Amino acid sequence: MDSRLNRFVAAWTPKINHVLKTDIEPDTDQRRLFEAMSYSVNAGGKRLRPLLTLATLTVFRQTITDSKLKAACALELMHTYSLIHDDLPAMDDDDLRRGKPTNHKVYGAGMATLAGDGLQALAFQWVVDNELAAQTRCQLSLALAKAAGPHGMASGQADDIQFEGTRLRLAELQKLDRNKTGALISYAVQAGLIMAGVAEKDQQPLLDFARNFGAAFQIYDDILDVVGDEKAIGKPVHQDSGKNTYPNLLGLAGAYDALKKTVDRAKDALKTADQTLQVDTSLLEDFCSYFVIKDEKHNGKTTR
Amino acid sequence: MDSRLNRFVAAWTPKINHVLKTDIEPDTDQRRLFEAMSYSVNAGGKRLRPLLTLATLTVFRQTITDSKLKAACALELMHTYSLIHDDLPAMDDDDLRRGKPTNHKVYGAGMATLAGDGLQALAFQWVVDNELAAQTRCQLSLALAKAAGPHGMASGQADDIQFEGTRLRLAELQKLDRNKTGALISYAVQAGLIMAGVAEKDQQPLLDFARNFGAAFQIYDDILDVVGDEKAIGKPVHQDSGKNTYPNLLGLAGAYDALKKTVDRAKDALKTADQTLQVDTSLLEDFCSYFVIKDEKHNGKTTR
Repeated sequence: MDSRLNRFVAAWTPKINHVLKTDIEPDTDQRRLFEAMSYSVNAGGKRLRPLLTLATLTVFRQTITDSKLKAACALELMHTYSLIHDDLPAMDDDDLRRGKPTNHKVYGAGMATLAGDGLQALAFQWVVDNELAAQTRCQLSLALAKAAGPHGMASGQADDIQFEGTRLRLAELQKLDRNKTGALISYAVQAGLIMAGVAEKDQQPLLDFARNFGAAFQIYDDILDVVGDEKAIGKPVHQDSGKNTYPNLLGLAGAYDALKKTVDRAKDALKTADQTLQVDTSLLEDFCSYFVIKDEKHNGKTTR
Repeated sequence: MDSRLNRFVAAWTPKINHVLKTDIEPDTDQRRLFEAMSYSVNAGGKRLRPLLTLATLTVFRQTITDSKLKAACALELMHTYSLIHDDLPAMDDDDLRRGKPTNHKVYGAGMATLAGDGLQALAFQWVVDNELAAQTRCQLSLALAKAAGPHGMASGQADDIQFEGTRLRLAELQKLDRNKTGALISYAVQAGLIMAGVAEKDQQPLLDFARNFGAAFQIYDDILDVVGDEKAIGKPVHQDSGKNTYPNLLGLAGAYDALKKTVDRAKDALKTADQTLQVDTSLLEDFCSYFVIKDEKHNGKTTR
């Protein structure tokens, strides 16, 4: 990982983790529910989404106040809720997440359902329960609802359930992923733009970056299932055979190629932003180092 | 039911139903998810919660604009999500709701989980996706999050799961119900107060009414399980034996007595509001006709 990004991540991850460790309990009225929510929120995520929000704020030279940090952390609550529900027996029925037993394995499916429900509500609470201007908080709340709800993530999850066992075409898989994982990642950048006060007409290049970054993220996740190491990525690999994934649809080399092209489009969007908005987006470009791209036909284990 | 309340309900229920019938689809990107959400939202609820919001606005002589109507309807989405998740196999595992198969019986537990998730997000969307002042929308969103989330409804549901099979004391049952059903009913009135621009210092009497109305609602629901008729209430009765309910804790006569006292407290709070705020809360008082109170020892079937 690039050293500038290393420093940024090292500076902000502990602050994000601190908010997520301390600020859930006072907003919860039930001990077991708090424990279930806290278990998954503090299970060691990379905090990619709030970091993307803070990086976008940094690109626009914004001071990261406590209010902005809290609003950024809301997205991690939303992301965690989606993982808890996705792992449920009624959904993917997964036993491991980030190397630990999934929420329902520890707390039961009923409490895990409620932990997800509670985290979603709390995410909406945190984007408005801060000192930002009311107009800003409304914009965050509306954008988050569209990204997480039936126009975004929930719709992608529904595609995932409905089309399990059905071979999708590439365009259908792209739509599924754009909603399922792309929407919240796009919101991460959008939240930074909203809090930085960037006018809607000027947001497009960075929204284009976010959309392509999110797409690349899903392609890479699919590739890791094929070539990754269970210990390194914290969940079982080789779970996707027969599922709708990029390697299954395009082959592994084709998936790497799609990844490379998608990351290139993300970087191109940043160049457009630099030129039209007179900003330096190189910190966001550094996030693309997350993707280890192999141009040659895959011939060994990918490391991260 | 009182004829003034009859007229109010007859005037506004179709308008609420119209919003709920027409406004979900454009906010949804997945057909099956839309059908699952719409199935439960349009399963014939009484719309008590949005009606309470609109009645509160009426008490303060507010014009009910499209924006206020939409924000009021958001609460019905939230309520419906809670019913769908509450019925899930991992929770109460119910087969019937409002006389129809529960959501997961029709769409499967995975899609039902997502329908609930989507409706919660959409509820938060609708309270901000309207023409109300930004400050008002933020207040609605924050109050809704506290009512529905881990400080409110989700906490009551967690109590319900955690203490299943454990005999609760009266104070513990009251806390459970205050969160599980009371929080959203209180929010219904609070949303009206917020949209009417009633200062926080003046809200207490009507919040007291709402808290007691919500408590009475749960006590009455418990009583109906004992004395009610399956066809009339649309779900199986006699499901609560051994559960933590008011009749099980206090006996049926004791539960009726608690209901009467709680409704009296609700009405007293309205008298205080009339005097201190110079308003006429009789429309809200009419809602108390929902509760058919028997003072004498129960000796027949309760009708509604």
